Amino acid sequence: MANEDQFKKVISHAKEYGYVFQSSEIYDGLSAVYDYAQNGAELKKNIRDYWWKAMVQMHDNIVGIDAAIFMHPTTWKASGHVDAFSDPLIDNKDSKKRYRADVLVEDYCLKIEAKIEKEVKKAEKRFGESFNKEEFISTNGRVVGYQEKIDTILKRLGQSLEKEDLADVKALIEELEIACPVAGSRNWTDVKQFNLMFGTKLGASAETAMDLYLRPETAQGIFVNFLNVQKTGRLKIPFGIAQTGKAFRNEIVARQFIFRMREFEQMEMQFFIKPGTQKKWFEHWKETRMKWHLSLGMGEENYRFHDHEKLAHYADAATDIEFKFPFGFKELEGIHSRTDFDLKQHEEFSGKKLQYFDHEDNESYTPYVLETSIGLDRMFLAVFSNALVEEELEDGKTRTVLKLPAVLAPVKAAIFPLLAKDGLPEVAKKIVEDLKWDFNVAYEEKDTVGRRYRRQDANGTPFCITVDHDTLEDNTVTIRHRDTMDQKRVKIEDLKEIIKAEVDVKHWLMKM
Amino acid sequence: MANEDQFKKVISHAKEYGYVFQSSEIYDGLSAVYDYAQNGAELKKNIRDYWWKAMVQMHDNIVGIDAAIFMHPTTWKASGHVDAFSDPLIDNKDSKKRYRADVLVEDYCLKIEAKIEKEVKKAEKRFGESFNKEEFISTNGRVVGYQEKIDTILKRLGQSLEKEDLADVKALIEELEIACPVAGSRNWTDVKQFNLMFGTKLGASAETAMDLYLRPETAQGIFVNFLNVQKTGRLKIPFGIAQTGKAFRNEIVARQFIFRMREFEQMEMQFFIKPGTQKKWFEHWKETRMKWHLSLGMGEENYRFHDHEKLAHYADAATDIEFKFPFGFKELEGIHSRTDFDLKQHEEFSGKKLQYFDHEDNESYTPYVLETSIGLDRMFLAVFSNALVEEELEDGKTRTVLKLPAVLAPVKAAIFPLLAKDGLPEVAKKIVEDLKWDFNVAYEEKDTVGRRYRRQDANGTPFCITVDHDTLEDNTVTIRHRDTMDQKRVKIEDLKEIIKAEVDVKHWLMKM
Repeated sequence: MANEDQFKKVISHAKEYGYVFQSSEIYDGLSAVYDYAQNGAELKKNIRDYWWKAMVQMHDNIVGIDAAIFMHPTTWKASGHVDAFSDPLIDNKDSKKRYRADVLVEDYCLKIEAKIEKEVKKAEKRFGESFNKEEFISTNGRVVGYQEKIDTILKRLGQSLEKEDLADVKALIEELEIACPVAGSRNWTDVKQFNLMFGTKLGASAETAMDLYLRPETAQGIFVNFLNVQKTGRLKIPFGIAQTGKAFRNEIVARQFIFRMREFEQMEMQFFIKPGTQKKWFEHWKETRMKWHLSLGMGEENYRFHDHEKLAHYADAATDIEFKFPFGFKELEGIHSRTDFDLKQHEEFSGKKLQYFDHEDNESYTPYVLETSIGLDRMFLAVFSNALVEEELEDGKTRTVLKLPAVLAPVKAAIFPLLAKDGLPEVAKKIVEDLKWDFNVAYEEKDTVGRRYRRQDANGTPFCITVDHDTLEDNTVTIRHRDTMDQKRVKIEDLKEIIKAEVDVKHWLMKM
Repeated sequence: MANEDQFKKVISHAKEYGYVFQSSEIYDGLSAVYDYAQNGAELKKNIRDYWWKAMVQMHDNIVGIDAAIFMHPTTWKASGHVDAFSDPLIDNKDSKKRYRADVLVEDYCLKIEAKIEKEVKKAEKRFGESFNKEEFISTNGRVVGYQEKIDTILKRLGQSLEKEDLADVKALIEELEIACPVAGSRNWTDVKQFNLMFGTKLGASAETAMDLYLRPETAQGIFVNFLNVQKTGRLKIPFGIAQTGKAFRNEIVARQFIFRMREFEQMEMQFFIKPGTQKKWFEHWKETRMKWHLSLGMGEENYRFHDHEKLAHYADAATDIEFKFPFGFKELEGIHSRTDFDLKQHEEFSGKKLQYFDHEDNESYTPYVLETSIGLDRMFLAVFSNALVEEELEDGKTRTVLKLPAVLAPVKAAIFPLLAKDGLPEVAKKIVEDLKWDFNVAYEEKDTVGRRYRRQDANGTPFCITVDHDTLEDNTVTIRHRDTMDQKRVKIEDLKEIIKAEVDVKHWLMKM
């Protein structure tokens, strides 16, 4: 419950402080699509740059590319997306509404879980201090029964989906007597697979138009360019190709704010290696990517690895870096050992050799691939939700503060004249003029300094700089730190170095 | 002809040095779609950052946003794109091929122009040194006749298109006896308008799916967010909202490499102003944007303004900044006084007030808008094609050098050990390790230093740094400048400052 409240606060704070708006809000929005506002665009850009710098600039053997969203449609046959990138859907014949069949079943299980929760709360009230929640759940007959029912249902659902036995998924829905939330009836169609790629048509004539897809992932743009990049870049294995860019998925159930959107941005790196070395590189990239996350100082306890037991057809090892979002631990980044599946598929469908000649071993081979793939929007949500804090102050008041890692903060410093007179604005504006060459800075002269501090705290600005009457005498200003609220008197000429020491990318990357 | 050769060289150099690849090349490409390769991705990113820094970071009253490609479809009714964003197309009934009707006519005129060119060449040969081309063109009967024919045809085409008299466009094609280049026949359909937006469908059910468009311009993402940005950002008029991002147009005739692509990226700024002040701001932004271009040092003679005589329905003033591409002066950036057309349209279609309350004048109004809009891909082509030079050297040899503005170059410095032994590689790699925190750098040890210089020249790298045996004694290296080929002996510890002085964004923006 507290988490749900926290999540609501995240969403409303994101709107109120110009981070994320619903897309096309004046037209009542577009479902599961969001726009990044003036502060959000900067935060997103800073996260992207921080990733790019760490992955591309800091690695001699990793280069970046920027492939188009439009790709030749055969790409998606080779990658398997045309045949197998789909969700099982079911329609209610009365309401004409369409649902994800697996989500209907999962929602049914959530309702049973709510019953467990209710039993727990009742018992908690009854037994008071002596109540042991875990013991209760594992021994109370009714609760155990509920839990067994959930386990049985989810096991059957998983097995049916794996075997692609869609008839059994429908049978399960009917046995559980799940009704359409809109029509209330159980008048269901069969379950069918529905492809998640957005389609469009290239060219004007009906006869010559080409069916295109909006890419559902950025990885394939790297695979089809692999040989051109390797040759023109004179790259030697092991080497990586990185890319950031938009991808699109026609999700039927798109929930949780910017966590799962229909239009989203990925930051991916495909690392090309010699077959047989994938275990070593898998461990290497697990460690390296985790270090990147930890360098941002968002709390070691908020990350965990989740190794996949069931692997995708192209993978021989896979793990997620999960982050503790307001709605629990969820995937933030995936690290996958993709073998030579993708390159081999493109060789087959294109008829072109996609091999690497290893001069050291004097042999040609199709490289194996180690992938690191992170959702930029998810990373944004992780950073933003983790940063939003309500603090109780000594005077009993609370302050809302967005403790963004300073390297990612949209505005690095806000400069205030204590009063909007006596020549103070002129001095403050001169400081703005000087600092803006190096940092995003803001100027504010309205309201009391206290209110301006609160506003910049909520905005995530690491530093506030106040010009007062003493400044006119001795060229010093007050610099206040967002997190500690400590204030110091410093020389104007030292401001640049003081700010730089805390916001410079280098300084943060060195923590890796 | 020389220009055509130059353009071919640009395209092949872009591929050979990892700047631009044809999209999905292993599948024989996708027409008018390109991928940015390892150097191209960096160059494109650097241009985008240079624009963003100049427009957003350096202006207190301009903020940036990042709106989604997907927008509510009513947006495009309001903007006029659903009704009026189209090309006149005609089909040949035999070949089933579709053409832009206006381009068929223009191509016909190009053939007449080729005849003029032939006459000129013949006369040039006959008269030798005493030949005056301009006089010949204005007095030779045959040539004058050709030119008059071209003028008559283009005038009629322009008038018919303006009046939307598509029947007359067809009549013109028939009168000129234009044949289908494929079928050779003159069996044409009527001319019809074809909308240039790419469509797709959101959602899974046929009943509930929503027809979406891929945005054909980024500007509307700014207009629909105008009030949210203004309010949450507490912005006062005049203020600007900037954005970079992809847009899509289903061009029938997409030519000239990355100059006109189906998927492209825009860098736009919409400046919201008080009605009546648009003339002043139009002049202000004309001047400011031109200064930005000139700061890159690509030759004042390569730019010119082209004021529009015929204005779009939403504009009350418009000019293009044209650049001298290898195929002549063409539009690089547009500066448009858009009045309150867009905001008023969105007010009408959304039913929401999009007004600004002016505290100083105590009145509400719908702001006027001044737009600056530049194609990132066109800017890339301008920079790249302008930079590619073949120089004759003193020894009679030529060198190919890519004289990119250093602030935009993908790799800032390449570090070489003179020989791949005697401990020189270790020292060179140590320099790489040190510099890479601040710059994109490369390491090369293969081939002679001379060949490495040539490769980095062609790659556009501003500095080459060579470690030799003296380095081991005195910690100095040779630094060579790409453009002048001057070499200097400097201390390793001074390298960072020497490079920074020439590649730092600040240094370049100060030229504005």
